[in-house]
Amino acid sequence: MIRKSDKPIKITEVCLRDGSHVVAHQYTEEQIRRVVKELDDAGIHYIEVSHGDGLGGSTLQYGRSRVNEMNLIEAAVDECKQAKIAVLLIPGIGTCRELTQVHSLGAGLVRVATHVTEADVSAQHISSARELGMETLGFLMMAHMAPVKTLVEQAKLMESYGAQAVYVTDSAGALLPHQVRERIAALRDSLNIEVGFHGHNNLSVAVANTIAAIEEGATRIDGSVRCLGAGAGNTQTEVLLAVLDRMGLNAGIDLYKMMDIAENTVGPLVPKPQEINKGSLVLGYAGVYSSFLLHAERAGKRFGLDPRDIIIELGKRKVVGGQEDMILDVASELAQARILEV
Amino acid sequence: MIRKSDKPIKITEVCLRDGSHVVAHQYTEEQIRRVVKELDDAGIHYIEVSHGDGLGGSTLQYGRSRVNEMNLIEAAVDECKQAKIAVLLIPGIGTCRELTQVHSLGAGLVRVATHVTEADVSAQHISSARELGMETLGFLMMAHMAPVKTLVEQAKLMESYGAQAVYVTDSAGALLPHQVRERIAALRDSLNIEVGFHGHNNLSVAVANTIAAIEEGATRIDGSVRCLGAGAGNTQTEVLLAVLDRMGLNAGIDLYKMMDIAENTVGPLVPKPQEINKGSLVLGYAGVYSSFLLHAERAGKRFGLDPRDIIIELGKRKVVGGQEDMILDVASELAQARILEV
Repeated sequence: MIRKSDKPIKITEVCLRDGSHVVAHQYTEEQIRRVVKELDDAGIHYIEVSHGDGLGGSTLQYGRSRVNEMNLIEAAVDECKQAKIAVLLIPGIGTCRELTQVHSLGAGLVRVATHVTEADVSAQHISSARELGMETLGFLMMAHMAPVKTLVEQAKLMESYGAQAVYVTDSAGALLPHQVRERIAALRDSLNIEVGFHGHNNLSVAVANTIAAIEEGATRIDGSVRCLGAGAGNTQTEVLLAVLDRMGLNAGIDLYKMMDIAENTVGPLVPKPQEINKGSLVLGYAGVYSSFLLHAERAGKRFGLDPRDIIIELGKRKVVGGQEDMILDVASELAQARILEV
Repeated sequence: MIRKSDKPIKITEVCLRDGSHVVAHQYTEEQIRRVVKELDDAGIHYIEVSHGDGLGGSTLQYGRSRVNEMNLIEAAVDECKQAKIAVLLIPGIGTCRELTQVHSLGAGLVRVATHVTEADVSAQHISSARELGMETLGFLMMAHMAPVKTLVEQAKLMESYGAQAVYVTDSAGALLPHQVRERIAALRDSLNIEVGFHGHNNLSVAVANTIAAIEEGATRIDGSVRCLGAGAGNTQTEVLLAVLDRMGLNAGIDLYKMMDIAENTVGPLVPKPQEINKGSLVLGYAGVYSSFLLHAERAGKRFGLDPRDIIIELGKRKVVGGQEDMILDVASELAQARILEV
C-alpha cells in the first residue's frame, strides 16, 4: 500500500555539509558561492552549509575547516534568491551560541541531530531554535541501531520539544528498503509533524530507500549532488530527481540544471569519485559510522587482524560516534581470541 | 507478498564481459586469468567471458578486442576449479560457428540474447546450444521497452526453443523496482523454467531491482564486481552479496574474497570509476542504450542542440541497438522544430 503524503516533497541538498567530509572540510568561499547560486537557480528548497559534523565541528578531532563556517554561511545566504540556507547542529559539538549567530547571518533552518537513543539532549537546542523563529527539524542519527518502538519514542520527544519534522537518518548506510518503509510508516502513524529521510549509499540502496520513504509519506528528503557525503556518500540528488520524475513525482526542481551542476560544478571539486569500496561496504554491512574505519585499519595492522573483523565486531557491540577508543579494546580481544584458538 | 524461489540463487559474474565495455575490450589474457582464478576461488557459480557485445563482437563497429576472445575463453576455462565459464551470444553478431568453438574450448553455459520483441531470432542458436549439451539461457534485452504481456510471450518462445531460464535484461538501466517486480512475477507465473535478472545502475537502483527480482523468485542473477559494465555499470556483485547476507540469503560465495577482488584486482584495471554521470543518467531516464550517447553528443554539437533532448526523443521513439543512424534524423527534426518555434 502506498501512503504517500499529499504535502509537497522538500529537498535539502547536503553536498556542502555531508559532502564537506569528502574534501576534508576544505571548501572555499568561492566554491560555496558558486554551488549555492546554481542550486538556488535550479530550484532546490534548502541548502545545508556547515562543517561535515555540524556547527562547531572545525576542531582537531573532527578536522579543521579551511574557512570559518560563519563566513561560508553568510556567503551562502548572500547567493540565495529562493532557497533557505540550512545548518546542522549536533548538541555537544555545536551550541546555542552558534545557532544565534547563524540565525543572525540569515540561516533559516536548523536540523538538530542526536544519536537515535539520545533525543533528550536536543530539548534546549530545539526550543532555542524555535524561539529564534527558525524552521526546526530533528535528526535521529544511526537510526538502524534502535528498534522501531524506540525510534518512535525518541521522535516523539523531539516533537514535544518543538521539532517541526523528524528525520530517520541512516548515517551508516545500513538500512534496507523494507526497514526504511517500516520506520517511516511507524513515525507517520505516531507523529503529527512531517517525517524526513537522510540516506547513505554504502549498500547501494540510498535511492531505493529514499523512494521507499517517500512512498510511506516522508516529505523532507536529503540528497547530495554527485553522491558527495561520508562513507559511500548520500542519495545522489540528480538521480533521485530523475527517478521521481519518472514516477510522476516531480519536485519542481530543474533536472537538467541539476545534472549540469553535478557534471560541471560539483564533480570537479572532488578529489576522487564516490565509489562503494571495501571500506564503505563493510561499514554499511556492519552498521558502523565511517569515522571508525581509519582507526580500525590501523588497529588491524597493529594486531595482525583483518580490519573488517574489527568493524563487524564493533557493529555487534553497537558502538556510536565518540566511542572510537573501543576499537583498540575490541582489536585486542579479537587478537587474544585468535591466539587461544590456535 | 514475498514469492522467493526455493531453488538456490546462482550468480553470474559479468565484469569480464559487460565490463569489457569499460576497458574498450582491451582485457589481456593475464588479467582474465587472474580475475577468473580469484572469482572461482571465492565460489562464484558462472563467469561470463566474451566481447562486451558477445561472441563475434570484435569488429570495427563494436570495437576490436585486444586479444582474440577464443584465447581468453580458453584461458578462463583453464583457471576454473568449480565455476562454469559462460558466454554471451547475440544472434546477428555471433553465430553457431562460434558457439561450437567455445563449447569445444570448455565453456559450459550460453546466454542467447535478443531484443525483447525479437525472441524468434534465437530459435536456432538455443536449439544448437542444447544439442551441444550446453546450459542454455535466454536473455531478453531492453526489457523496459515491451509491455509485460509481450515480455511473457517472448519468454515463452525462448522456453519453447529449449531455453532453461529466461532473463529480464534491463540493458538501459531504465527499470524501477516495482517494474522489475511486475515483470519477474509475470514470468514466474507463465514459465516452467527459471527466471533471471540482469540490471544496470543508471538510475542507482540496480541492487534494489535485483533484490526485488529475487523476492519475486528470480534465481539466475547477474552481478559485476566494482560495478563494471556498460552505461553506469551493473549490479555491484560484492555489494549485492553483502545485502543478501544481511537478508539471510547467503548465496554460498565468500564475501571477504569478493571484496578483496573488487578492491585489489578489478578496481586497478579500470581507467576511471563507474559513476552515475550526466550521460549515464540521461540514458537510464530515457531508456536508451549506451551506444547512442556518443553519437547523440556529436549530433548535439552539429545541430546546436542539448544531446539530452536528442536522447529523450530517441527514447520516446523506442530506438534499439543498430538504429544509431536515426540519431541524425531526430536531431535534424528537433533543430527544424526549434527554428519554427522562433
